[in-house]
Amino acid sequence: MAERNEITDYFRGLQADICQQLADADGAAFVEDEWERPGGGGGFARVLEGRAIEKGGVNFSAVHGELSPAAAASLHVDAGETGFYATGVSIVLHPRNVHVPIIHMNVRYFELDGGRFWFGGGIDLTPHYIDREQAAWFHQQLRDTCDRFDPAYYPRFKQWADEYFYLPHREETRGVGGIFFDRLEPATEGKDKADLFAFTAGVGETFAPTYLHLLSLNRDAPFTEEERRWQELRRGRYVEFNLVWDRGTKFGLTTNGRTESILMSLPPVAGWTYDYRAEPGSREADTLSLLRKGIDW
Amino acid sequence: MAERNEITDYFRGLQADICQQLADADGAAFVEDEWERPGGGGGFARVLEGRAIEKGGVNFSAVHGELSPAAAASLHVDAGETGFYATGVSIVLHPRNVHVPIIHMNVRYFELDGGRFWFGGGIDLTPHYIDREQAAWFHQQLRDTCDRFDPAYYPRFKQWADEYFYLPHREETRGVGGIFFDRLEPATEGKDKADLFAFTAGVGETFAPTYLHLLSLNRDAPFTEEERRWQELRRGRYVEFNLVWDRGTKFGLTTNGRTESILMSLPPVAGWTYDYRAEPGSREADTLSLLRKGIDW
Repeated sequence: MAERNEITDYFRGLQADICQQLADADGAAFVEDEWERPGGGGGFARVLEGRAIEKGGVNFSAVHGELSPAAAASLHVDAGETGFYATGVSIVLHPRNVHVPIIHMNVRYFELDGGRFWFGGGIDLTPHYIDREQAAWFHQQLRDTCDRFDPAYYPRFKQWADEYFYLPHREETRGVGGIFFDRLEPATEGKDKADLFAFTAGVGETFAPTYLHLLSLNRDAPFTEEERRWQELRRGRYVEFNLVWDRGTKFGLTTNGRTESILMSLPPVAGWTYDYRAEPGSREADTLSLLRKGIDW
Repeated sequence: MAERNEITDYFRGLQADICQQLADADGAAFVEDEWERPGGGGGFARVLEGRAIEKGGVNFSAVHGELSPAAAASLHVDAGETGFYATGVSIVLHPRNVHVPIIHMNVRYFELDGGRFWFGGGIDLTPHYIDREQAAWFHQQLRDTCDRFDPAYYPRFKQWADEYFYLPHREETRGVGGIFFDRLEPATEGKDKADLFAFTAGVGETFAPTYLHLLSLNRDAPFTEEERRWQELRRGRYVEFNLVWDRGTKFGLTTNGRTESILMSLPPVAGWTYDYRAEPGSREADTLSLLRKGIDW
């Protein structure tokens, strides 16, 4: 029950299922790129430059090998545990339409020599323009999924996302947050492996219907050149978060990870304007006022 | 001789002189933004969104205060030396025309309580398309300036730039390099303060004539939409270097520095394409082949 192969197969199937749904909704096809990791294992990147999705990446990987000393230290792993196996699915979608939010999803499983293992993942949303009603609906989907497994999950993982997806140098959250969880282990969670796997899978399966609903609501909304520039600036903040603060990105780039997979999350185009100030009372100013931790959507 | 006020005034004048020359060449005017640092001192940012320069920043600052424990550790400073004074000029210019290179220049002076001080700085060039002849001419200007002060400077500081402006995750240098130097102190250099100041000033004064020549050579060269996209991708690498690897940027963003001044270096627009491959034999492939350390231009 929930052996590594079963989990790996599940993630591979989840990737296929999500890509199918996204391709159907978009109308364009994914490009596929299979890659090998020199130290063991590999992955399958699926990339969409589509009609509604300007740049999207859905990556599956299953890698194994020996943790480097730096990686072992960063993961707080003991000397006898440096052999590892890791598998997961990671998604970032940058839509063309300014009124469709950017989304990120990740589900992952990590196993060490000696038998310790854990699950991690999450979904978070980064609207260029925050629509309160849609943000609330998005959070409700996450809450519903969490509540099927444990009523403590949503508040705990929602707060974790608020803390994680934060840009200290801007004093801004990346977007409206979502849920984030890491290192869910039986010993600390009081759950068995099957429960933790089922929850992680539940999060993965929440992704497609949730995003496709938000996409269908907004994909045909009109927008101006000025709003397109705002989208570039918000994508610039996304780049800043990923390159400066995201622990996974940093870890990957400084430990010889596969650069193209790690940086699949970056937008097709991003922009910076010196000391941009939103006009008081504008939709841009309203969005900025909502990039705060602790909002109960 | 070469007291901190004299150095500060010199840097302020250098900024004014460079901005005058850039504005004359560009035809557009700089926007000015004076700022204060909560802990002491402040700066004067001058920003150009011009005809030839799509986004340029020329920042002067003179700040003082107490080093945070993190900053003191990072600078290897003793307990009695935590009061500091720092002044300098920092420039990054992103030109509109694909055939005009991006340039970066910095000159700086740092002084600690107790009397220790040092100079640092450099100039480096990031062409979107490398022109070997122009790269060689650029390096010759730097060599000429260095040689006026010490024949050992150019080879030493050229190598330092190769090491510093490097993206390990891409196995690429940022561009064709230039010179980089830091912590030039009388005790380790065997020079007096006036000499080190004169050299640093010489580097500062090399900037404008060198860049204006490269600008005039290339600013009217025609380019295509595909080449403009290549410029976006190269600017994306510039963003990656600055946000992931540049020690000054990292230090500033994680020690509560002034974000807008630190990120003045980012381009107006940058782009990312999954696993971009240059066509063999193309000008893009030629440029990529030259992004290596140790080239004797």
